[in-house]
Amino acid sequence: MSEYQLHCLAESGNAYKAALMLELCGLDWSSILVDFPNGEMRTSKYRQDINQFGEVPVLVHKDLQLSQSGVILNYLSEKTGQFGPANKQEEYEILRWILFDNHKFTSYMATRRFALRFMKTGDTEITNFLGDKVKNALEIVEKHMADRDFIATPTLSIADISMCGYLYYGDELEQNLGSYPNINAWIDRIAATDGWKHPYDLMPRAFPD
Amino acid sequence: MSEYQLHCLAESGNAYKAALMLELCGLDWSSILVDFPNGEMRTSKYRQDINQFGEVPVLVHKDLQLSQSGVILNYLSEKTGQFGPANKQEEYEILRWILFDNHKFTSYMATRRFALRFMKTGDTEITNFLGDKVKNALEIVEKHMADRDFIATPTLSIADISMCGYLYYGDELEQNLGSYPNINAWIDRIAATDGWKHPYDLMPRAFPD
Repeated sequence: MSEYQLHCLAESGNAYKAALMLELCGLDWSSILVDFPNGEMRTSKYRQDINQFGEVPVLVHKDLQLSQSGVILNYLSEKTGQFGPANKQEEYEILRWILFDNHKFTSYMATRRFALRFMKTGDTEITNFLGDKVKNALEIVEKHMADRDFIATPTLSIADISMCGYLYYGDELEQNLGSYPNINAWIDRIAATDGWKHPYDLMPRAFPD
Repeated sequence: MSEYQLHCLAESGNAYKAALMLELCGLDWSSILVDFPNGEMRTSKYRQDINQFGEVPVLVHKDLQLSQSGVILNYLSEKTGQFGPANKQEEYEILRWILFDNHKFTSYMATRRFALRFMKTGDTEITNFLGDKVKNALEIVEKHMADRDFIATPTLSIADISMCGYLYYGDELEQNLGSYPNINAWIDRIAATDGWKHPYDLMPRAFPD
């Protein structure tokens, strides 16, 4: 058995954050595919045994079971000494961006993609509402990335790994990233990191291609 | 001048998280009212000088200017030694709930209240969508609070201070909290803490009453 197991599915950018971190840290890990299409995450069994929030990712490491990608990223960074802050100021800066990601960036982007791509709702008042929120967040990031290589620190950190969670899904995002050159340069920079892989090359898929 | 200044408005539950923490820690602080109704937070001046996210709260402490309530809570907890984790496990547990709060709890609740209360949109597809999200999150918390006093640790922590941000606005929430007895007992427990104050007694209002 691998040292780390990750409850995940390749379609989840939140799971990808944890999977990418495990991979970039060179850890011995394996996937446990969660049957999202058939509602596994919503069952009381899953909520009771795996994650009360009914979500992925969940990282299992020995006796420990951790949910919330931001917690998993912090845990792995502290365990391995990689992609973490060099000092207190960087620690707050990383946390600031991980919180922004959870509050305003990933959150709206993931919810919108889910509706359009998997629920196939088409454009609705709700997807437009979410689209406006995503646009606001992208503009903040685009401006922020004008004069730096990585989001929170001089080199790659868990803040980048959190923020980039949904940015490699291309057309699936249903959000044109083409008009954000700084964001594109930044995600190319992350993708150039030794060991980087696309979500679909890191985890098993739950939905048919 | 007070030792700490907080850019805030009493109507913001996110600002309340920081204000309540400052107050409960017995710190010397004062408010700087942000003119939200006239769009101050959206101006380029505010984004450039105060907070690139265009949000409150922002805490000023000497040369330091901190945004994101979760960062401010961590900073003040470390500074004062109050309401923080007793060990690594508690640290992760507190972070887990602060992330959940940002991702699924405060986020949807605040956005819904803003639309209904301040934009006066009435019920729309969007407020209903947000209402469903809030309900899901409230049910998770209601269940979680069945057998404990505080959200993440045996005594009050910054996770509670984060999560309770919007829960004292009563009718303004446009969300009936009455059907959640565990949540009600929990927020009464927090409100019984020495020094606790309601948001409208802690910060100046930006909207007319």
